[in-house]
Amino acid sequence: MNDTTIESVRDRLRNFAHARDWGQFHTPKNLAMALGGEVGELLAEMQWLTDAQVLQKLADPDTRDGIEEEFADVFLYLVQLADVCGVDLIEAAHAKITRNDGRFPPTEPSS
Amino acid sequence: MNDTTIESVRDRLRNFAHARDWGQFHTPKNLAMALGGEVGELLAEMQWLTDAQVLQKLADPDTRDGIEEEFADVFLYLVQLADVCGVDLIEAAHAKITRNDGRFPPTEPSS
Amino acid sequence: MNDTTIESVRDRLRNFAHARDWGQFHTPKNLAMALGGEVGELLAEMQWLTDAQVLQKLADPDTRDGIEEEFADVFLYLVQLADVCGVDLIEAAHAKITRNDGRFPPTEPSS
Amino acid sequence: MNDTTIESVRDRLRNFAHARDWGQFHTPKNLAMALGGEVGELLAEMQWLTDAQVLQKLADPDTRDGIEEEFADVFLYLVQLADVCGVDLIEAAHAKITRNDGRFPPTEPSS
Repeated sequence: MNDTTIESVRDRLRNFAHARDWGQFHTPKNLAMALGGEVGELLAEMQWLTDAQVLQKLADPDTRDGIEEEFADVFLYLVQLADVCGVDLIEAAHAKITRNDGRFPPTEPSS
Repeated sequence: MNDTTIESVRDRLRNFAHARDWGQFHTPKNLAMALGGEVGELLAEMQWLTDAQVLQKLADPDTRDGIEEEFADVFLYLVQLADVCGVDLIEAAHAKITRNDGRFPPTEPSS
Repeated sequence: MNDTTIESVRDRLRNFAHARDWGQFHTPKNLAMALGGEVGELLAEMQWLTDAQVLQKLADPDTRDGIEEEFADVFLYLVQLADVCGVDLIEAAHAKITRNDGRFPPTEPSS
Repeated sequence: MNDTTIESVRDRLRNFAHARDWGQFHTPKNLAMALGGEVGELLAEMQWLTDAQVLQKLADPDTRDGIEEEFADVFLYLVQLADVCGVDLIEAAHAKITRNDGRFPPTEPSS
């Protein structure tokens, strides 16, 4: 398996939920709330730190794991929510960047 | 370019921010707040709907775009935040699923 | 009416929802999602600003209203959610502060 | 002290922060992130429950405390954030309800 794709994550999550009969809980609204909950945990990791301290925490193997795990949790629920809603995150992202390109013209380089 | 990877999204976002000199605003805390803001918009799309109505809205091309765009926005800020923090979302996700596999044993199939 | 109390806000919100037959939408989960949505808007107001710029924006009557309105929206949904859940915010707050007082002993004054 | 007012909560929070020298951390953006974090915890309390189960949990003294404490945490950070930003929550709330009254005319009673 090529496990560098979002699909590889999505498929493991599908199997994971199926093996535990958790699909019944994974409605759009429930997963959106779970996503909100995990983003809250990511915010909480950073709330009392400066930006420099956040980066320091990430640079230190002893403290990196906690914050990296919060990233994972946010991503896992976003992938599951998109899956249940039939949204292709990569495709939606490229479409939005293309739209933004038109809305926000690049800055003129000063010379 | 293979644009089905997270890297393809990340690279376009890097170029986008660079061309507008927005890198100065993209600190970890600012991006985390932006992520929280976009998740809020996704929650708002669903708040007064039932789960069935959310799926109906997604099934109708006339109403699908609004909600798909909120998914894109959440994902775009998550990718940028992970980029600034040096976190590989796919790798972190697989590591977390593996950990969860140990923590939550699958349900015994009833027979 | 003494309109400096939370009860005065709660009662107007009850009447407001009743007059529009919106009570049917005001379930705990829906209101919690709406609260998450409004906190997202408050985060978005501040995301690209420095702390000094946030305070400047609040000090200027021309720009104050937008951010003050986001505070109001967060508070209105918190009051409604607490009302539907039968939670007394003031009482719960005092109980929590008392608990925190025991958990986090004040710093010794350095002399 | 009349401890049924928001001011009574705000004043205890001011003293609490002062006694621990935590004022240095209580900038608008930090407190907004903390608010987002606590709303996330409130969402997490409800995410896998039905609305009926949320109300059941609140009706049972054995399970009520956890969720009530999350309400308290959200409220405590909202009060602190409003305090630092010089926003009167009650006043802002009444102003917003008055505005909403004009924007959303009550439903005609059907007869």
